[in-house]
Amino acid sequence: MSAPALTIREIEPEEFDLVWPIFEEVVREGDAFVHTEETTLEQARAYWSAPPARAFVAESGGRVAGSSMIRPNQPGRGDHVANAGYLVASEFRGPGVARALCLHSLREARRAGFQAMQFNFVVATNASAVHLWTSCGFETIGRLPAAFRHRTLGFVDVLVMYRRLDF
Amino acid sequence: MSAPALTIREIEPEEFDLVWPIFEEVVREGDAFVHTEETTLEQARAYWSAPPARAFVAESGGRVAGSSMIRPNQPGRGDHVANAGYLVASEFRGPGVARALCLHSLREARRAGFQAMQFNFVVATNASAVHLWTSCGFETIGRLPAAFRHRTLGFVDVLVMYRRLDF
Repeated sequence: MSAPALTIREIEPEEFDLVWPIFEEVVREGDAFVHTEETTLEQARAYWSAPPARAFVAESGGRVAGSSMIRPNQPGRGDHVANAGYLVASEFRGPGVARALCLHSLREARRAGFQAMQFNFVVATNASAVHLWTSCGFETIGRLPAAFRHRTLGFVDVLVMYRRLDF
Repeated sequence: MSAPALTIREIEPEEFDLVWPIFEEVVREGDAFVHTEETTLEQARAYWSAPPARAFVAESGGRVAGSSMIRPNQPGRGDHVANAGYLVASEFRGPGVARALCLHSLREARRAGFQAMQFNFVVATNASAVHLWTSCGFETIGRLPAAFRHRTLGFVDVLVMYRRLDF
């Protein structure tokens, strides 16, 4: 199929319901995301879309294909480094939506004045994600041994990835 | 002077007032801790001692020499890795109190079932801390370029440190 026309827009915390079905789906898979099925809608909303976090949705043909979130990775003297997260609906998988969301969030983070972006928790066995973030300019700056309990593989490593935005 | 007799005990969230003067002091120094003077008492209490975080104080001769905090570093599929933090009053500086708090928190974390401990934000210019955590078995697994705004040095690097507890 041809690439879907994708539009990305910021949402309000009250609109998190648009994201929740994808959040639930990704959590059930248990292979890429730290949250579990025990996470409630309100916890997920607070994590993903409550200030200082800002959430975005990628829509295609009136359907929500994925979502991104950016926020300061630390308070105070570390708040010039952004953190971001991405969720893509299974029926929209493939590199297109995640890449579009990542490039969009890099632009948004730079526009908001962040000087770098950090991913704290990239599951090392999620090869397509590692490849994609690398192609978006992120470097793997560290590897956390056995820091993720993968639903089918058990304990697997986690990568910390980082890229400067001041260019 | 001889080493002070140090006792370490867990405190309740309501007892955070014991820690607050040290928190304020470390924040003013601006060279090792991510929080700033804008952090309120209630924010500090929530960060340091509200569940799932657990806070401890080290007391010497009836005075609070320092404090530690342990908590899961991530929710869900990452909650087997602990995070910890340490604050030492300036008049009790030197490796003794911080080392005692670190060794105590490693024991507590292991007892609570954590399988590893991660420090997310060790300021690279804080050489005594880097040396101390290394001597306590932590490895530097990554370096975040310019991730900390040091009060006098400007942008400096931050280290991510990690050690397994399953031994």
